[in-house]
Amino acid sequence: MTLLAAAPTTRFADRQIDMAHGAGGKASRRLVEGLIVPALMAASVGDPLSDAAYVTLGDTRLAFTTDSFVVRPLRFAGGSIGDLAVNGTVNDLAAGGAVPIALLCSVIVEAGTPTDILNAEMEAMGAAADRARVRIVGGDTKVVEHGKADGLYITTSGIGRVDPRAALSPASVRPGDRIIVTGPIGDHGITVLLARGDIDLAADLRSDTRSVYPFAAALLDEVAADLRWMRDPTRGGLATSLNELARDCGLSMVLDEERVPVRDEVRGACELLGLDPLHIANEGQLIAVVAGGSADRALESLRRVPGGESAAIVGRVEAAPARTVLAVAAYGGTRVVDMLVGDPLPRIC
Amino acid sequence: MTLLAAAPTTRFADRQIDMAHGAGGKASRRLVEGLIVPALMAASVGDPLSDAAYVTLGDTRLAFTTDSFVVRPLRFAGGSIGDLAVNGTVNDLAAGGAVPIALLCSVIVEAGTPTDILNAEMEAMGAAADRARVRIVGGDTKVVEHGKADGLYITTSGIGRVDPRAALSPASVRPGDRIIVTGPIGDHGITVLLARGDIDLAADLRSDTRSVYPFAAALLDEVAADLRWMRDPTRGGLATSLNELARDCGLSMVLDEERVPVRDEVRGACELLGLDPLHIANEGQLIAVVAGGSADRALESLRRVPGGESAAIVGRVEAAPARTVLAVAAYGGTRVVDMLVGDPLPRIC
Repeated sequence: MTLLAAAPTTRFADRQIDMAHGAGGKASRRLVEGLIVPALMAASVGDPLSDAAYVTLGDTRLAFTTDSFVVRPLRFAGGSIGDLAVNGTVNDLAAGGAVPIALLCSVIVEAGTPTDILNAEMEAMGAAADRARVRIVGGDTKVVEHGKADGLYITTSGIGRVDPRAALSPASVRPGDRIIVTGPIGDHGITVLLARGDIDLAADLRSDTRSVYPFAAALLDEVAADLRWMRDPTRGGLATSLNELARDCGLSMVLDEERVPVRDEVRGACELLGLDPLHIANEGQLIAVVAGGSADRALESLRRVPGGESAAIVGRVEAAPARTVLAVAAYGGTRVVDMLVGDPLPRIC
Repeated sequence: MTLLAAAPTTRFADRQIDMAHGAGGKASRRLVEGLIVPALMAASVGDPLSDAAYVTLGDTRLAFTTDSFVVRPLRFAGGSIGDLAVNGTVNDLAAGGAVPIALLCSVIVEAGTPTDILNAEMEAMGAAADRARVRIVGGDTKVVEHGKADGLYITTSGIGRVDPRAALSPASVRPGDRIIVTGPIGDHGITVLLARGDIDLAADLRSDTRSVYPFAAALLDEVAADLRWMRDPTRGGLATSLNELARDCGLSMVLDEERVPVRDEVRGACELLGLDPLHIANEGQLIAVVAGGSADRALESLRRVPGGESAAIVGRVEAAPARTVLAVAAYGGTRVVDMLVGDPLPRIC
């Protein structure tokens, strides 16, 4: 769940829905802010819809999230739609400062889909849930006619208990805070792109799909009081998540571009395709903003988590220019990094 | 959420997924019990998956449910996919003995869908949520290529607080209990069928889509200690819900067929099409099983709820024949009422 983020600003004027509206970038934001939120907010009795939903029950603060998965193809190096469906929802809870408790799984199956395909994805979900130590407690199944879906769509919802040590909010972010990522970016998006066979490129890449909860837990254990904000940068990549943060907190996110971990294979594919690795989707990375004085400790705690060995401090928060993401290149040049525009990589999750 | 109901009994042997697997009847049950539950249960650490998911948080018992909506056409007399998406999830919570608290909405939109159509459904969801006094607190949006969906699919998830007075379970059902329904059955299924224009029949019918929470609340206020079980009988209708109950409690559900409220238009369409009104989907009715001594009081409480004027006691629970639903006709004949088999009415919700 990434898209019900802010108060509506403008009516949505496009006459029909296009692929770009699902890409997680600017068009998605216009659709959500200009159409979906205003319509649904009639029901929200004055509360702004926020990026993660929180509900207080007795003395427990509950996080509640949902995501639909329409990735194509269903399987790719390192994972499948079933893995994404579990990890994506677990990661929304984890990035929201919550301990994942339970998931629900609703599948829309195209008639004619071989049973083996459905079975493989249900087993992938079961195994991913085991790895993430979360339980799948129920679900729903719908079937639509052949040609009215694309094999299998999965919607996963999850609840989690908000860690009381977490006080995460864009409003907590301050100039001087550091931006940390847990590992190399862009692996998922480029892997899925290669799995489609649309481009003639061989690369030894795997999706990074995994639970990021261990990273979130490590940060809460180590630097809870200095942990400002977390996000798992899926559709639209690191650039889109940081642009959303920059806008929401009114500050500047300054990336030290050579410190952002990017595999050579991802960088090469991006150069070939005219893409920016900062815009490519991740499914197993966490961005954290941590107070400057605690950043080294936070980084060490992440590097101790298996799979976090290449975590890096990649930038810092500055007061100006407001609401902007900048990337400073190794040779010293600085460029403005925008949100994703258009949909270069449709149906990436 | 209606389909993760019981322990797996047999492997699913069909080689591909067909429409009947989504119809809510016998084939759906085989798919869920034979494939989905065994695969996902790897994650459930020994807990059987139950019909509604319950999670205990501190001193609160939480109900958690999800449903995907793929109804065709999107709009029909009395409602639309947006209404169903809110009411269906509210009703799963209500039938589970919970006060609905919050919903999430995830949409999969086909590229090329006119914005007006999406907007109308988002507004329908907002209005339905207002009527049901529940908040939509977040969601997700995905877009798939033209031809890879059928306009719009919506998955709604909901959480609710279990009413501590509710102790609902098939295990609580006893011989002598009465079966109550809140109004005429089959309106929704036949309305959607007519909206498709496949059959040449004009009838003044509307979907019954609405929140059944007021009915559940009335029963809890009036006869909580004697309220055994509730269900909203959607896909597969009253017959399928009662067959599930009969199987789960090991008893017999004996319907007094002439007392089951069915509109003439629904009865007429069913006769023409060779369908049984007991198998037709409802989207705004509740079935309740109540101790015999409290049944009249329960009925009166339902009839006082606006829209509950035609609530009726339609049958009773007997000890034998075990795991069976019987219908006793006006002239005294008795027939066995099976679960829905096949899918006479695909994509009804």
